[in-house]
Amino acid sequence: SASSIIKQTSATWLPDRLMIYLHPCAAKTQVEFEYDGPSMKTEVPGPRSKELTKQLGEIQNVGAINFFCNYEESRGNYLVDVDGNRMLDVYTQISSIPIGYPAEFPMFTSFSSQSAFVNRPALGIMPPENFPEKLAESLLSVAPSGMSRVQTMACGSCSNENAYKAMFIWYRNKERGHNNPSDEDMSSCMINQSPGCPDFSILSFMGGFHGRTMGCLATTHSKAIHKLDVPSFDWPIAPFPKLKYPLEEFTRENAQEEARCLEEVEDLIVQWRQKGRPVAGIVIEPIQAEGGDNHATPDFFKKLRNIARKHGSAFHVDEVQTGGGATGKFWAHEHWGMDDPADIVSFSKKMLTGGYYHKDELQADKAYRIFNTWMGDPENLLEEVTRSGKTLLQGLYQLQDQYPNLLSSARGQGTFCAIDIRDDATRNSILLKARDKGVLLGGCGDRSIRFRPALVFKEYHVHMFLNVFSDVLAEHN
Amino acid sequence: SASSIIKQTSATWLPDRLMIYLHPCAAKTQVEFEYDGPSMKTEVPGPRSKELTKQLGEIQNVGAINFFCNYEESRGNYLVDVDGNRMLDVYTQISSIPIGYPAEFPMFTSFSSQSAFVNRPALGIMPPENFPEKLAESLLSVAPSGMSRVQTMACGSCSNENAYKAMFIWYRNKERGHNNPSDEDMSSCMINQSPGCPDFSILSFMGGFHGRTMGCLATTHSKAIHKLDVPSFDWPIAPFPKLKYPLEEFTRENAQEEARCLEEVEDLIVQWRQKGRPVAGIVIEPIQAEGGDNHATPDFFKKLRNIARKHGSAFHVDEVQTGGGATGKFWAHEHWGMDDPADIVSFSKKMLTGGYYHKDELQADKAYRIFNTWMGDPENLLEEVTRSGKTLLQGLYQLQDQYPNLLSSARGQGTFCAIDIRDDATRNSILLKARDKGVLLGGCGDRSIRFRPALVFKEYHVHMFLNVFSDVLAEHN
Repeated sequence: SASSIIKQTSATWLPDRLMIYLHPCAAKTQVEFEYDGPSMKTEVPGPRSKELTKQLGEIQNVGAINFFCNYEESRGNYLVDVDGNRMLDVYTQISSIPIGYPAEFPMFTSFSSQSAFVNRPALGIMPPENFPEKLAESLLSVAPSGMSRVQTMACGSCSNENAYKAMFIWYRNKERGHNNPSDEDMSSCMINQSPGCPDFSILSFMGGFHGRTMGCLATTHSKAIHKLDVPSFDWPIAPFPKLKYPLEEFTRENAQEEARCLEEVEDLIVQWRQKGRPVAGIVIEPIQAEGGDNHATPDFFKKLRNIARKHGSAFHVDEVQTGGGATGKFWAHEHWGMDDPADIVSFSKKMLTGGYYHKDELQADKAYRIFNTWMGDPENLLEEVTRSGKTLLQGLYQLQDQYPNLLSSARGQGTFCAIDIRDDATRNSILLKARDKGVLLGGCGDRSIRFRPALVFKEYHVHMFLNVFSDVLAEHN
Repeated sequence: SASSIIKQTSATWLPDRLMIYLHPCAAKTQVEFEYDGPSMKTEVPGPRSKELTKQLGEIQNVGAINFFCNYEESRGNYLVDVDGNRMLDVYTQISSIPIGYPAEFPMFTSFSSQSAFVNRPALGIMPPENFPEKLAESLLSVAPSGMSRVQTMACGSCSNENAYKAMFIWYRNKERGHNNPSDEDMSSCMINQSPGCPDFSILSFMGGFHGRTMGCLATTHSKAIHKLDVPSFDWPIAPFPKLKYPLEEFTRENAQEEARCLEEVEDLIVQWRQKGRPVAGIVIEPIQAEGGDNHATPDFFKKLRNIARKHGSAFHVDEVQTGGGATGKFWAHEHWGMDDPADIVSFSKKMLTGGYYHKDELQADKAYRIFNTWMGDPENLLEEVTRSGKTLLQGLYQLQDQYPNLLSSARGQGTFCAIDIRDDATRNSILLKARDKGVLLGGCGDRSIRFRPALVFKEYHVHMFLNVFSDVLAEHN
């Protein structure tokens, strides 16, 4: 049950009145504390949101702000804004509110333990007494297959940056045949030169998103605005399969497309080795999220993992978006059915901290940090996610049949679903219209809508969403 | 007074029993809650620490762990370990406990608000109602001269990475003469190529430390182990002045050394422009901390700032280590006495969040985030820091006169002090012996000891420290 956080936080951190707010996190008692549907009082943004945006604009850039929220009034699947509008949230702050609102209390308290630890470097030197126990209880209890070690980090970008560094160090030691750098290694690295700073590369995929710090950014290829004007590395970029959905109906074409991409991956590895920039690691998302919810088959990932092994490159699965249950498995890569799915798996978001799991041989030489998480026994939530996800995807298929000129490529695993809209303008109009009717959705890629509800999004929430979505689509047909 | 955090946290987060622990944060009432001196029960690490290290070793690398702490029993300037040893802490978790222990409560609650915000990207899109007010109250109230805008980030590395990106974007727009990228810019950046990803550089200094993500790491040159085996950028690296201490006694030699370094900076800027990698920004610490507590004079920084202006490079002052009061001014760069000290100032650590201040023209195009801080009116604390720092430095001068073969180059601003030891082995032995006597110190550079006490480190703590230090030195003479 999700009660581990409640026990922990209530005992240590919270006065009694907050206990009421914590209950919605427990899946079983959630219903009684949730609102019974959306309720719209004003247009969005309403007058109070507009006023606050104006105030904030005097000290900060407000270009990205949609509206201001009242997090204290938000409950379960419903987000309430400062004008009193109550909206069904199918986007959850870009997939970051795992077990529903009020996010503030459980998340703040979870973050509090976690952040103080991960942000205070000396805690790898002087940890508190419960350090080993907490690690074993929390993160290690859900470690991916074949991985017994974990490194925690403050955010998704840092998780990936450090995973890349671990792969570079591992690759270089493999190349050396030992762990003892030469004097030339030590002196040249101080001035950014090889051999100390070798010309290694990470192979990534078009459409991938792995973060915004400069190492991550060199492997991010989803939107130009993320990368524009920032110096980068000459690293190879492979095509990600462009599949047709539903995958089961286009197996032969999809298999051809995946074979083409895999061939390109091998060509790039050989080319980059020849130009003296060997591929130390391959990084990929199980579902390209930011890039448009692009899926590939388990067969593709199995073959890619084998290509990495064959060429001596580390295989890094980035589960920052997909980890934590939304696909109906705790890790999206579990859908591949492999005993040895990866060398490194990075995470963030729903896990309430960042970091990466890794195999023993990728052990870095740094001290480790701790965190506390809400995780305990998430099985019930995952069953729920699988059930809601199936209902959601079936509903999307029906709407797609009903509106063939408007919708295409409904796809998903668990509640981690998406659908393509005719064009960008229509997509954006649908997002706004749905919000006016009290349903919060998010876009991804050029013309997709992504669904990222909380793990407590139940079948009746799916039906409520489908009704509103259906109305909005009728207006756009 | 430091009471703003207390008000905030107690009202919102903490049950009554924790109020007791919070009081030590208020400078005026601290004394009554603090221990009266170190108290050692076992060797360090003691049996309980050893047992926990063994347990943790089964799941993680424990190479860096010194001992395990009991943070609940730690108070004011005293850190207590799990074996009941109570130590005067002159290092404060690498300078990260601004107002003394128990760090857990004030820091956890401050971090809690902060982290939930900075780690949840959508809060730049859907902030809570108190967002503008909190920003103005906290971070903006201590903004450096000439800066009215602030971008918060989760950690020091992210702060610097994003500051670099802001400088690159600013420089490129200046080069373009407008903010509208071409189609070629947009398409080339997606595959890491110029002109979209331009070959710009950041000029940094030997001995500097700016973080461990790959952009930051290309400007970090303090220890080889940070950089080894990680690909880097071909960016210029200037010498940082190697001055003689006390600065006042060697003004002529030091001025020559600073002039030599400034000349080298200009040469490098010209060289890198000629090889097509123009210097978009210069990054420097007011005191090189990790690199060995290396100081330079206000005159050096003024001239460097002018060189940056002359060549059209942004000037980035990294106050991640020095910001927050330890130098006796809120920002170390205030000691330079300039109206326009920088274009960007990054921070972290004592500020309890990361981020950077910047001038209007370096406005990035991203959404902003919020945090709550303990800051209010820190004047009393800064007076205290100045007084304790003066006593500490005078004490170090006296010991240096007494042990000329053992000690040299005592230096400092406020309590941000350091001293060099004869050699690395002696330095490490002194650190261990001091710990056995209940005083926690930290090293930096090749053979320095750095002092990083909390802002509540008073003159009587200085005397307590000097007594123990003096005993330890006598054993090493």
